[in-house]
Amino acid sequence: MTHPLLTKHRDKLDAATAAIATREYYSAYPESPSPRVYGETAAADGKAEFEALLGKEFALSTGDIVDHVATEVSPFGIDLGIHYPRMSPDTLIETARAAWPSWRDADPGTRAAVCVEILDRIHSHVFTLANAVHATTGQAFVMAFQAGGPHALDRGLEAVAYGYAEQLRTPATARWEKPAKGEPLVMNKRFHIVPRGLGLVIGCNTFPTWNSYPGLFASLVTGNPVIVKPHPHAVLPLALTVKYAQEVLSEAGFDPNLVTLAVEDPSDQVAATLATDPRVRIVDFTGSSEFGDWLEANARQAEVYTEKAGINTIVIDSTDDFKGLCRNIAFTLGLYSGQMCTTTQAIFIPEGGIDTPDGHLSADDVIAGIAKAVEKVTGDPERAVELIGAIASTQGVERIAAAAETGEVVLASRRLDHPTYPDARVHTPLLLKVPGDAKKAYGTECFGPITYLVTTADTDQSLRLVGEVVAEQGALTMGVYSTDESVLEKAERTALDVAVHLSCNLTGGVFVNQSAAFSDFHGSGANNAANAALTNPHYVSGRFTVVQSRRHA
Amino acid sequence: MTHPLLTKHRDKLDAATAAIATREYYSAYPESPSPRVYGETAAADGKAEFEALLGKEFALSTGDIVDHVATEVSPFGIDLGIHYPRMSPDTLIETARAAWPSWRDADPGTRAAVCVEILDRIHSHVFTLANAVHATTGQAFVMAFQAGGPHALDRGLEAVAYGYAEQLRTPATARWEKPAKGEPLVMNKRFHIVPRGLGLVIGCNTFPTWNSYPGLFASLVTGNPVIVKPHPHAVLPLALTVKYAQEVLSEAGFDPNLVTLAVEDPSDQVAATLATDPRVRIVDFTGSSEFGDWLEANARQAEVYTEKAGINTIVIDSTDDFKGLCRNIAFTLGLYSGQMCTTTQAIFIPEGGIDTPDGHLSADDVIAGIAKAVEKVTGDPERAVELIGAIASTQGVERIAAAAETGEVVLASRRLDHPTYPDARVHTPLLLKVPGDAKKAYGTECFGPITYLVTTADTDQSLRLVGEVVAEQGALTMGVYSTDESVLEKAERTALDVAVHLSCNLTGGVFVNQSAAFSDFHGSGANNAANAALTNPHYVSGRFTVVQSRRHA
Repeated sequence: MTHPLLTKHRDKLDAATAAIATREYYSAYPESPSPRVYGETAAADGKAEFEALLGKEFALSTGDIVDHVATEVSPFGIDLGIHYPRMSPDTLIETARAAWPSWRDADPGTRAAVCVEILDRIHSHVFTLANAVHATTGQAFVMAFQAGGPHALDRGLEAVAYGYAEQLRTPATARWEKPAKGEPLVMNKRFHIVPRGLGLVIGCNTFPTWNSYPGLFASLVTGNPVIVKPHPHAVLPLALTVKYAQEVLSEAGFDPNLVTLAVEDPSDQVAATLATDPRVRIVDFTGSSEFGDWLEANARQAEVYTEKAGINTIVIDSTDDFKGLCRNIAFTLGLYSGQMCTTTQAIFIPEGGIDTPDGHLSADDVIAGIAKAVEKVTGDPERAVELIGAIASTQGVERIAAAAETGEVVLASRRLDHPTYPDARVHTPLLLKVPGDAKKAYGTECFGPITYLVTTADTDQSLRLVGEVVAEQGALTMGVYSTDESVLEKAERTALDVAVHLSCNLTGGVFVNQSAAFSDFHGSGANNAANAALTNPHYVSGRFTVVQSRRHA
Repeated sequence: MTHPLLTKHRDKLDAATAAIATREYYSAYPESPSPRVYGETAAADGKAEFEALLGKEFALSTGDIVDHVATEVSPFGIDLGIHYPRMSPDTLIETARAAWPSWRDADPGTRAAVCVEILDRIHSHVFTLANAVHATTGQAFVMAFQAGGPHALDRGLEAVAYGYAEQLRTPATARWEKPAKGEPLVMNKRFHIVPRGLGLVIGCNTFPTWNSYPGLFASLVTGNPVIVKPHPHAVLPLALTVKYAQEVLSEAGFDPNLVTLAVEDPSDQVAATLATDPRVRIVDFTGSSEFGDWLEANARQAEVYTEKAGINTIVIDSTDDFKGLCRNIAFTLGLYSGQMCTTTQAIFIPEGGIDTPDGHLSADDVIAGIAKAVEKVTGDPERAVELIGAIASTQGVERIAAAAETGEVVLASRRLDHPTYPDARVHTPLLLKVPGDAKKAYGTECFGPITYLVTTADTDQSLRLVGEVVAEQGALTMGVYSTDESVLEKAERTALDVAVHLSCNLTGGVFVNQSAAFSDFHGSGANNAANAALTNPHYVSGRFTVVQSRRHA
């Protein structure tokens, strides 16, 4: 019997599955917040739904509650004051386990269809979600909409497609007939998908949905209940996600507590407690290298998937479009004030300069060109804040000041007044010039709007330094600009050696720090920035196993 | 350009790939050692090739050698005296890494074809290998031939098929075209298979080839060099494997040192040293839980795949063929003296007895029936040794004596004289009766010809005890006998809960401790007996990643 939701979502699942196999363009959720796409009232309705939540207790399905806590602090200074129900770690775990059996025993197609229904339900509230992401992360609204909504939903759907496909690799039954003297040996075999067990998703402050949906949906589609533990400063986007998931699960006849919210009292260590509990079998984490490494070392009873810090780089060798190069890099550095795990931190430029169609430019010309382009996109505060947003944490602001001491300031960071939010933490990017041997500066992660322009003897040295830094620290992205095919091939070899994804000669509307679901991999799982890639078969296949039985026919 | 070996092996790869998808019967290497299959002179030629190696230095491709060492002790008392070239751990690692680049950069099809050629080359010396396995493990010759030759080669081919298929999941290139205002954004993308890095395969004494081939070929086909570290008492089967692999690699234009042999001086800790070296990126291990757990905890820089100890069980509830049940269990317990990681250690029988077509039998009747069947297959020494072989280690013999103190002896173990090898360690199975609460006895792994017959209140208690023991200790196999479909379903639920593969009502020519490549999974990776299954997609997909590059079209 095919579940009605599977009939409903068959085409979307098929399209997603086809896309991950071809890596061609696909998106299930429109990224434009335009009223032409979403309807005239969608934006206002979402804003109203968001505002109605402020200062109230947030309603969710839970087990026994200890209390309600409010931990959020908006980088824009928006007063949130939402109180979330808090369960103890033990209640969280037992509530999830009690909800498990019917989901565990559902067939993969039903689970995949229910997951798509959850994604669609979230999407039907995408403006509410966008307001929540905007308010809690400091992302400008359009970015909060796109990255926090459709792009996150696409990444969720991608995980559903991979998880669904992976469960179909082994047939449910087989007839095995082995030739023998006389009668053949004939066995009937059954193969069961056995979900691994309770999952825990630990979200981050800057991308609460985009970075959590892959793990959430990968665990869910493969039959596991999931506890969602948001960053204390960005709870609402995941609380909404849990709420919509619970609605759909209930409607589909499953226990809503298959997906629950773990909020923390500022004094406790709920993430560490949950992650190391023997009953927790899967952990997905995005955040600091320190806690990610700790989880890998200590949550030994679980499959642990981490995305941590790294040093993303661009090597500039030559270009046939210097203006395009500067514009593209300026957008990359400005977007959400460098608070993407994929934003470039170090840009390598040969001391002798580079060739361009307009003639040879010195290293300082190149640096000046980039600085000017950054100035341009951040010059007008009203337009700037729609690109750079706000600094997510007060530590982020402190880091900018501290970093200014670590190199020659090419472009100073300025505090801007936000036209809408007077208390917003808005700071323009800081650009620093350093020599290639200042690896201690540019080779240490400095999360936020801080970029090192590193001068080197030549492009070979640039690539060598990139290889060294990434081998040590890891990275999610690498860029290269060159008109010389042999340099591009050398850069590709460096990228393969340290397992980092490479973008070549980006001068238009694609940016090194953006990856497209279904086509671009995010992370490789093979350097220190992440132990897993979003998303590939390996990311889902450890979340279940196949157990067989056999008997004579 | 298709490599000529890929053209040669296309059909075999396709057949293996089809079999793992359907789980239907398939075998590439005939399991019968009959001259009708292998030719009149094959057995004698293999024996001669084996004997020509005894007492000599074994020739292999290596880096700088420290010395030659001879560490083997045959359970049959066969004088081996073969001296193997020993490299230091650092030489092993650097030699393998130096050999790597051209293999790393070869396409997956070429690598798969070379791997099949290696398997075929080993197969062309299968009688030599069988003699080596027989002499070093204590397996009777026919078993050494089958399990050490064709069945091991099938498991190797299965890993090649999985590894090859997995590398084709992502296309080599894609054209990505995103609709945009005006012109679409168009990117050309390249996706590269990036092998994880140096592999280490740590073999065991009892199944040097069967348990090592999956890891060896899974790492090799995905582009990684492999250091093969045999158990010091069972070096020859893997030394031959390395030798044939090196021959094929050289002939195919690759560096023979992609596969090398690590032998140990009895005083050093080469396995631990290699496994924790930062340059070693994949570890496959079969052996004790103690060292397996240590590897999982300490070889943190590597992907670690372990197969360790567990408690395999059978639950007897009722049967429609009591004689078949006894015969089947007796063969399972006798085969290679219980020295298979899949052999049953505890058989649960309700105190009130069981229903059979010949009427109700008491628990003691059931126990007596099994004991009698074991006596029957071990009564005549000449026939018995062809089933039970020899005890692999002196500790194994000591364990039999110690175990006799832990329950009521139902059938005592006897030492038998081997008709061919006067010094062989041949001991018949020991059967002990214990109550259900003697979990300390039957729930502690006791590797060798030792079986506990556990009486319980009823089948529900039997299943509960199985669930508890396997949840704690892990297991690779579980059996059940019942004529009641609801009991079989309950047993299946228990098997799923602890992720152990189940065999129902085996009374003929299939045994609970045997698994067929391409159809049966070996281990689930989801209980303490093993952290991986042989073989599923997850077993191969962590041995490489995909790194992409993109540029505007």
